[in-house]
Amino acid sequence: MHSFSEICKLYQKQRDTFVFPTSPKNLYGSINYFLDLPGKRVRPAMCLMVNELFDNIHADTYIVAYAFDLFHNFTLIHDDIMDRSPLRRGRPTLHIKYNEGTAILAGDTLLIQCYALLNQIESIYRTQIIELFADTARLVCEGQQLDIDMEGMEMETVNYADYLEMITLKTSVLLGGAAQCGAMMGGADEGQQVGLYEFAKNIGIAFQIQDDYLDTFGASAHTGKQVGGDILENKKTALLVKAFEQATSEQLIRLKEAFQRKGEDKIRAVMDCYKILEVDLWAVEAIRSYTAIAFDKLEEIDVPVFKKEKLLELASSLLVRQS
Amino acid sequence: MHSFSEICKLYQKQRDTFVFPTSPKNLYGSINYFLDLPGKRVRPAMCLMVNELFDNIHADTYIVAYAFDLFHNFTLIHDDIMDRSPLRRGRPTLHIKYNEGTAILAGDTLLIQCYALLNQIESIYRTQIIELFADTARLVCEGQQLDIDMEGMEMETVNYADYLEMITLKTSVLLGGAAQCGAMMGGADEGQQVGLYEFAKNIGIAFQIQDDYLDTFGASAHTGKQVGGDILENKKTALLVKAFEQATSEQLIRLKEAFQRKGEDKIRAVMDCYKILEVDLWAVEAIRSYTAIAFDKLEEIDVPVFKKEKLLELASSLLVRQS
Repeated sequence: MHSFSEICKLYQKQRDTFVFPTSPKNLYGSINYFLDLPGKRVRPAMCLMVNELFDNIHADTYIVAYAFDLFHNFTLIHDDIMDRSPLRRGRPTLHIKYNEGTAILAGDTLLIQCYALLNQIESIYRTQIIELFADTARLVCEGQQLDIDMEGMEMETVNYADYLEMITLKTSVLLGGAAQCGAMMGGADEGQQVGLYEFAKNIGIAFQIQDDYLDTFGASAHTGKQVGGDILENKKTALLVKAFEQATSEQLIRLKEAFQRKGEDKIRAVMDCYKILEVDLWAVEAIRSYTAIAFDKLEEIDVPVFKKEKLLELASSLLVRQS
Repeated sequence: MHSFSEICKLYQKQRDTFVFPTSPKNLYGSINYFLDLPGKRVRPAMCLMVNELFDNIHADTYIVAYAFDLFHNFTLIHDDIMDRSPLRRGRPTLHIKYNEGTAILAGDTLLIQCYALLNQIESIYRTQIIELFADTARLVCEGQQLDIDMEGMEMETVNYADYLEMITLKTSVLLGGAAQCGAMMGGADEGQQVGLYEFAKNIGIAFQIQDDYLDTFGASAHTGKQVGGDILENKKTALLVKAFEQATSEQLIRLKEAFQRKGEDKIRAVMDCYKILEVDLWAVEAIRSYTAIAFDKLEEIDVPVFKKEKLLELASSLLVRQS
């Protein structure tokens, strides 16, 4: 069994062997630029580590893992355009570095490449893998649409159930799909596949809520982001949605007033509201609860306990304790 | 053997049976809006008619034809964003009717759906079909990138060879790919498949040069577009590229001067240059020549002549005589 960092090294070695054509220069230059940005490679690692839960890593699993990696990068490139984000991991986003047309095409080409790769695997599971991949891909697009729709809505009209559906589709099913494909490639039965999908999906949900929590209540040195950035942008986070949902009519007035302020004053006022409404405590509990569901799902999988340790370590490293 | 219009009716009946989910409403509503715009369905018809050249239409061929139809619509949606086009076939483009984010996602979802469909066909050719489809899709993206690059270049630096590569990739290989898949589904051998790919690709090139020709020298009632629209936009058409390529240094000065004028005056001055350089005559000859190559390729295919008639009719209906 390999640890997350060992798996990442093995994966990177395989990743380097996949090369894109050189021409048209702008298309493939932009793709190489984006793929070379630093990243944690959680999705491909999840796929490979779950394969190893059941059997040695199949050569084809590296291809499947790479397809999930490319797909994730495709979503980042297109999301950056939609969100008009100028930076990603401290470097210019693709539509800024090149142009919007090239960024759209680079994403399209990555998506096409996913299927060209999956169609090459020799595994008896190829058809099932492509089907699962396409289903997952569609759900991710649906989640991104819900996010766009939600951003256009008034704060008090978004409810937590809608928020949860959105983040589940937008971010968590991809981690779930990567795990399920890894299980399939390792020869797991259907029950085990579903269990590992649920494990990874719930880790993804916990991670997303943690991301929202840390933006407001984390130390900025820890996240590398400005504390309160989401509040300044009126971003519909788990905290915001939950706060509006459970505020009394009196608290609602105060909350809206806080969101109308500017700068540090706004951050402080909104954080005060959040604390009164105890959405910080609620978030910590939600993260703990989704993590517990995930760990239960992993525990149910019928493989020796020592084999699960590295996966538990990966999950724990993603989910830093808040309390 | 069915005629183009008969095939279109058969196809439309099958097309109506494919339905998208209803939620998220904006995502699938926008897809349905775009797919319901009037269109000639040339690509799916080509796929089906080429199948019929060899055998009865296989049920799976309708799925393959639909995938080419969806892929074509995906390219139109994303190209409209890149070109900032407000209208398509007289109706608002998707990014205007909805928003840019939804338009990007609608295109992405259509592309994903192509592979979900192709992965369902039962044909023994499934793997080859997906491979050919992915190869074609990648080339189309490369062609669109070349188009973006070319639009940013000075007029006198674009040459006809680059223009030809761009239109071949951007528009003609998709028609070629649809024909080749149709041949494969009909049980054609590899030589026949390649021959029909070349037939359709050359029809596509002829059609594209004709499109450029008609924009400048066609009657506006015929094309439904403003005559001279390409000239007003400085669009790098076959005519423009060829004119700049073969102008003497003296003619080049006049040509550049013509492109600096405005409105009707600009159209008249550029058309005068084109006529002096005889690029109108050159274009008519180029259309004839690519059409002749296409027809030769079809003639070489070893099936009874009467079976080819409907395909010839389709090609001829696309290529209206100019002289």
